[in-house]
Amino acid sequence: MKNLMDIYARKKKDIAAIEKELAESIYTDHAMLKEASLHLLKAGGKRIRPVFVLLSGEFGNYQLQTMKHVAVPLELIHMATLVHDDVIDDADTRRGQLTVRSKWDNRIAMYTGDYIFAKALGVITQIHKPAVHQIMSKAIVEMSIGEMEQIRFFFNHEQTIRDYLLRIRRKTALLIAISCQLGAMAADAPDWVSNKLYAFGYNVGMAFQIRDDILDLIGTEKQIGKPPGSDVKQGNITIPVLFALQDPELKPLILKELERIQLLDGQTDVSRFLDLIRNSEGIDKSEALSQKYIDKAIAALDPLPNTQAKQDLVEVAYFIGNRSY
Amino acid sequence: MKNLMDIYARKKKDIAAIEKELAESIYTDHAMLKEASLHLLKAGGKRIRPVFVLLSGEFGNYQLQTMKHVAVPLELIHMATLVHDDVIDDADTRRGQLTVRSKWDNRIAMYTGDYIFAKALGVITQIHKPAVHQIMSKAIVEMSIGEMEQIRFFFNHEQTIRDYLLRIRRKTALLIAISCQLGAMAADAPDWVSNKLYAFGYNVGMAFQIRDDILDLIGTEKQIGKPPGSDVKQGNITIPVLFALQDPELKPLILKELERIQLLDGQTDVSRFLDLIRNSEGIDKSEALSQKYIDKAIAALDPLPNTQAKQDLVEVAYFIGNRSY
Repeated sequence: MKNLMDIYARKKKDIAAIEKELAESIYTDHAMLKEASLHLLKAGGKRIRPVFVLLSGEFGNYQLQTMKHVAVPLELIHMATLVHDDVIDDADTRRGQLTVRSKWDNRIAMYTGDYIFAKALGVITQIHKPAVHQIMSKAIVEMSIGEMEQIRFFFNHEQTIRDYLLRIRRKTALLIAISCQLGAMAADAPDWVSNKLYAFGYNVGMAFQIRDDILDLIGTEKQIGKPPGSDVKQGNITIPVLFALQDPELKPLILKELERIQLLDGQTDVSRFLDLIRNSEGIDKSEALSQKYIDKAIAALDPLPNTQAKQDLVEVAYFIGNRSY
Repeated sequence: MKNLMDIYARKKKDIAAIEKELAESIYTDHAMLKEASLHLLKAGGKRIRPVFVLLSGEFGNYQLQTMKHVAVPLELIHMATLVHDDVIDDADTRRGQLTVRSKWDNRIAMYTGDYIFAKALGVITQIHKPAVHQIMSKAIVEMSIGEMEQIRFFFNHEQTIRDYLLRIRRKTALLIAISCQLGAMAADAPDWVSNKLYAFGYNVGMAFQIRDDILDLIGTEKQIGKPPGSDVKQGNITIPVLFALQDPELKPLILKELERIQLLDGQTDVSRFLDLIRNSEGIDKSEALSQKYIDKAIAALDPLPNTQAKQDLVEVAYFIGNRSY
């Protein structure tokens, strides 16, 4: 399997152009906003959404300038939701960096999120396609509902797998799905192509989040840029845990740990909890489900012409399904 | 002087239509979001922004359907910033109602704001005029910078009148200015008309906020829907205070009170502070400045045709400059 960087190599120049545009788009004279926004930007990330925009744009009339106007706001929207999520999660680190809320405070994180989001809208206005705006705004509404849903399910062990899947659909999969769809639409690809790319992105997004949730349980702090078990400390019950809870012998032990962690508001050692899940079938079952989504994603690309872009999308999908960071 | 309701009477039917659209626009199956959003909506407000959109639209080809698509998102954006501001201000009541953050909590208030804002964007996509989108998104960026500025100046008694004016420009005047401008633009009024209306709205907005800040110091809780002195308790130093600080005899007394209030994090009786400001020249000077903005606003309307809409705008401006609620 290729490394993500190998896949990126072909689009290196264009990704660098987007990186530059990202930095320019959040520029402000306001010292604190500039510092907080740049801090976020420099914390990096895989820039998965821009990459999907670029690769999907190759199924139409690819113009870097047009691609930028789609890729930049999507990444900014993603960044804005991260800052707000960190407020909700009381998160101190992300990707090995201090979060805005821990480096400054929750109020500044809230307004930095608002600011970055506002800047995203400014970039979007440069796309003169009402359908693109409608798809984006609908996704943003769904995402904000998903954020709220997250709170409702904190420490709720009676939630179903379906609750979890619906949540990560809104939280992660939708934005990745529209990154693919809008990349194609902005490049004037035919509707059936952008629809297939939406399906691809949606399934990759589901796999991406499931993989993320697995890594939080089995990864090392170095790999995942935050202490393992961060999810459960915040009360975020993920799919490996839900699968593990299906084991009648493990269930009472896991519930007891969950109760203890909730009682201590997450301020406690969670290694016993991690051990329980790691030794359950939860990890394997989640990996299998993630693989199922990757397979679906790749199947969605079937009808598309066999281009380099398609091959790259397949490689990114495989990477995402198996990544350890 | 006419009461606001008299001015509204002529547009009663259209305002009711907008009120209905506001409620529909934030509809969601999500119980908590629905409850929190409706709570906000029902807390009401003067709907000044929609009224300005409607009156300004009468300078062009007035179509209620088009006006709705401008008025509704502007009011939603205003509502969203209020919820986020309440988080920053630790505000418990607004307009005599519990705030979202006090009825639920700060996290829910943050996400409710995000949700309402997202819904606003959805409505905006129905306007197919890139210039309208650009003006809106620029104003939203400025507003978000203004929000952050607010924090920086908390309890800062060395700020200048200019700092204050720049802050309320972003916080209040801009959104009212573009309400007038975009109402006219959406109705295809000529550019010079929408520009004059922008100037009108900007000056009315400045007067509006100055009046708001005066009322926080001299109004009763019944009039203003929150305890007087709320601003200083949050550390928000407003223009009557800045004017009062220009009196060398009063200055040390006011600073001493400010220091005490800051030390106690606003959790203290502020009647001594209110007395000091009320007995200073700060109120009169602020009222004079507010009046100056109202005069400028009305002067901006001079070149416009003498229609009922123009007369109504003048009446609203007078009301705003003298309102006691």
